[in-house]
Amino acid sequence: MGLDVSPLAPQSFPELGEVAGVNLFVGATGETYGDRVNVLLAQFDSGTIAAGVFTQSRCASAPVEWCRVALAQAHCRALVVNAGNANAFSGKQGALAVDSIASHIARETGCAAEEIMLASTGVSGEPLNAQPVLDVLSALSEGARAKYLDAAVAIGTTDTFAKGAQAVFFDDGAQANIVGIAKGSGMIQPDMATMLSFIFTDMPITKPVLQNLLEAGVQTSFNAITVDSDTSTSDTCMVFSTGQAKGIAPIVSMDDPRVEAFGKALGDVLFDLAMQVVRDGEGASKFIEVEVTGAVSDASAKTVARSIANSPLVKTAIAGEDANWGRVVMAVGKAGEPANRDRLSIRFGELTLAENGLRSPSYSEELASAYMKNSELKISVDLGMGQGCGTIYTCDLTHGYISINGDYRS
Amino acid sequence: MGLDVSPLAPQSFPELGEVAGVNLFVGATGETYGDRVNVLLAQFDSGTIAAGVFTQSRCASAPVEWCRVALAQAHCRALVVNAGNANAFSGKQGALAVDSIASHIARETGCAAEEIMLASTGVSGEPLNAQPVLDVLSALSEGARAKYLDAAVAIGTTDTFAKGAQAVFFDDGAQANIVGIAKGSGMIQPDMATMLSFIFTDMPITKPVLQNLLEAGVQTSFNAITVDSDTSTSDTCMVFSTGQAKGIAPIVSMDDPRVEAFGKALGDVLFDLAMQVVRDGEGASKFIEVEVTGAVSDASAKTVARSIANSPLVKTAIAGEDANWGRVVMAVGKAGEPANRDRLSIRFGELTLAENGLRSPSYSEELASAYMKNSELKISVDLGMGQGCGTIYTCDLTHGYISINGDYRS
Repeated sequence: MGLDVSPLAPQSFPELGEVAGVNLFVGATGETYGDRVNVLLAQFDSGTIAAGVFTQSRCASAPVEWCRVALAQAHCRALVVNAGNANAFSGKQGALAVDSIASHIARETGCAAEEIMLASTGVSGEPLNAQPVLDVLSALSEGARAKYLDAAVAIGTTDTFAKGAQAVFFDDGAQANIVGIAKGSGMIQPDMATMLSFIFTDMPITKPVLQNLLEAGVQTSFNAITVDSDTSTSDTCMVFSTGQAKGIAPIVSMDDPRVEAFGKALGDVLFDLAMQVVRDGEGASKFIEVEVTGAVSDASAKTVARSIANSPLVKTAIAGEDANWGRVVMAVGKAGEPANRDRLSIRFGELTLAENGLRSPSYSEELASAYMKNSELKISVDLGMGQGCGTIYTCDLTHGYISINGDYRS
Repeated sequence: MGLDVSPLAPQSFPELGEVAGVNLFVGATGETYGDRVNVLLAQFDSGTIAAGVFTQSRCASAPVEWCRVALAQAHCRALVVNAGNANAFSGKQGALAVDSIASHIARETGCAAEEIMLASTGVSGEPLNAQPVLDVLSALSEGARAKYLDAAVAIGTTDTFAKGAQAVFFDDGAQANIVGIAKGSGMIQPDMATMLSFIFTDMPITKPVLQNLLEAGVQTSFNAITVDSDTSTSDTCMVFSTGQAKGIAPIVSMDDPRVEAFGKALGDVLFDLAMQVVRDGEGASKFIEVEVTGAVSDASAKTVARSIANSPLVKTAIAGEDANWGRVVMAVGKAGEPANRDRLSIRFGELTLAENGLRSPSYSEELASAYMKNSELKISVDLGMGQGCGTIYTCDLTHGYISINGDYRS
C-alpha cells in the first residue's frame, strides 16, 4: 500500500489463544493486493451460534443485507470475508454474488446457505465478481489452517497494521476464550472506509444473550469511535460462539449471574479492537479521548462528545499541538444539546483551561502547549447541567488524511 | 495575513451605490492587524430599523447576546464591529465591554444604548479590552467617511478578499438600494471562524416585514452554505433600513404585493454574499453545489445535501479531482433520512454516474474525471422518494485547510 505504519500502532500483534471449533483459512485472489491474502474463510463446528450488528446506513451493502436476514437462523457454519471490493451499491449483481458464495460454502459444508455469513470491504460501486473468490474458496479447505494474524491481514484494505485482541472468561476452574480481529480505516483508491470486526469464542451461551451482550458492548466501543464522521455502508461486527469450552455450563439467560463478567470480557475485546481502529485512523498522529460529563443525559453527553470529536477545527488544532479550547466551546455550542456557557468547564489532561464561562484563572499557555505534545490526549468537558456522561475516541486531522483521500488521483 | 487570495475569488469588489441615511467610518486599533482598519462604525439616521438573525450556538458570544435583546427596540442608530477579538466565552468582562461600547456611541448619538448593535470577530476566550475600540471610535466620527469596501475590509479577519454585493429594488419610477458586506471564513490564530454579514437599505419597510424577509432569505443563502461543518459562536446577519428612498411608499405588511420583489432583491444580496463566503472557504480550490431532489420533504433534502457537503471523504475526493460517487452514496446513507438505495441516482454536472442502485450503463470514467477538473462543480442526487428538494453550497477539503488551522503553532 505504500503507507507507513501508524505512529499510534501497538508494538505488535497480540498472542492469541485457540478457540475450539473455529478453523481459519486464507487465500489470495490476486486481483487487488497482489500476493497478499484477501479472502478469509472461518469454518465453525456444528452448534455454533452468531450475533451481529451492522451499519445504520440507508444504503447498506449486499453482504450486510444478506447477514441481517441470515442471522435469523439458529446456527452458523462459516464466515467468508473478501477484501478489495465492498460489493456496495452493486444492485442485483451484488446480491447474486453474495448468493453464489454462500451457496458454494453451504454445499461444501452440508448446511443451508443462510448459515453462511459474509462480509466485503474495498471499492464500492463495482459489482463484485464472485468467481475469483469461489476459486480461492475451493482450494482453501484443503490447505493449511491459518492463524488469527493471517485472518486479520486477509480482511484488511489500507490498514497499516493487523488488529487483534483477546480476553479470557474464567468460570471456577474452567475458561472460555474470546478472540477478535478487526479492520479499518484507510483507503488509497476510490472506495469507502469500512469497519469490519469478527469475534470468536468457545463460550457456551445462547444466541439471544450473545446478541444482547454484543449490542451493549458496541455502545462503548465501536459506536464510541470516529475518525472522520463518515459512516460506511459495510460496517459489520459479528460474534461467533462455538460453545466448546469445557466444563462451563451455558449462559441461557440475561439473569445468569455470570452475564456481567462474560459481558465485560467480550466488551474488553470489542473496546481493544475499536481503539486499534482509531489508532489506524487515516493520517492519525494523536489518539484523543473526549469525555463529557454533567450533561442532561448520557445520550446528550455522547452527542456533545461526538460534536467535539468530529469538529474539523478541533481536530486540526490538535494536529497542530494547539491547546485551542475555544474551538471546544464552539463544538459544544453547535451540538444542539442543552448547555449553559456560564457553567461550562474544560480540561485538557489534568489542566483546567476554562471554567464558569471563561478562561480559568489558573490557565497557563505554556503548560497547555506542553501537554499538547503528547501523542495521547484527553479532553474533558463538564456541562454543569446534570449527571449524564459519555466518551468518544478519535484521532486528529492531518495532511496525511488529505493525502490518503484526496491526492492519489490528482 | 500572508494568505493568497482564494482562486475562487470574484475578479474585483463590486461597484456599490449609496444608501441614503447610512454613514460609514473605519479605524485601526493597531492591536492585531497593524495598520489595517479593524473597527467599523455605521451610523444611521433616526428612523432606521433593524432585523437580525444569529448563531444557534448554545455558547453565543457577548455581542450576539446583546443584539438579541437590543433588537426589541423600535429603532437602531448605529452598528459597531471590531475584528481581532470575538468577545466569545468571555464571561462578565465580555458583557461589560459590550455595554461600555454601546453606551459610548449612544451618548454621542443621543439615543438609548440598546439602539446600538454590536458584532465582534477574531480570537475567542480572550476577554475583549474595550478601551482601544473606544479610543478609535472617539476619533472616528470626526474623520472622513468610509466606503463599503473599507467597511468590508474592516470586519475581516483572515478573509482573502473583501466581500460586497448589491441589488436595486424598483417601484414604478423610484428605486431603493440594498447593499451588503460580509466576512468569513478563515483563521490563522487560535480563534473561531465567524461569519458576519450586514446589509444596508433605504427601502421604506416596517421592522416585522424586514425580519420576516431576512429569516426567509437566509434559508437559501447563509443557512445553505458550509465550509467545514463548524458553527461559530458569533454568526450574525443583520439588515438595517433607513427608509430614505424617495418616492416609495413603505411596505407595512407581508400582504403588500411588492413583498415578493423586494424579498427577492434582498435575497439576491444575501445569496451573493453567502457564495462569496464559500469562495473564501479555508483552503478552497473548488466551489461545489450539492442539489438533492426526490426527498420526502424539503427539510429531508437539505439534510441529505448537508451530509454530502460536510463529508470529509466527499470533500477530499473532490480536492483530488476524483469522481468518487461511491462516497456520495455513503453520505446519503449516513444522513439518516428516508432513502432507498435502489432508487438513487447521482449526476456530476450533466453526467449520470449511478442510477437505480448501481453504476449507470452510460458511466465513463474518462468523462467523469474530465468533469472534475472544473473549478465549479455540481453534484445532483435524486432520492426517488418524493418531491422534496434542497441545495447546499460548499467547497473542497484541501491541504490548505489543514495548514491554515493546524500548522501555524506546530
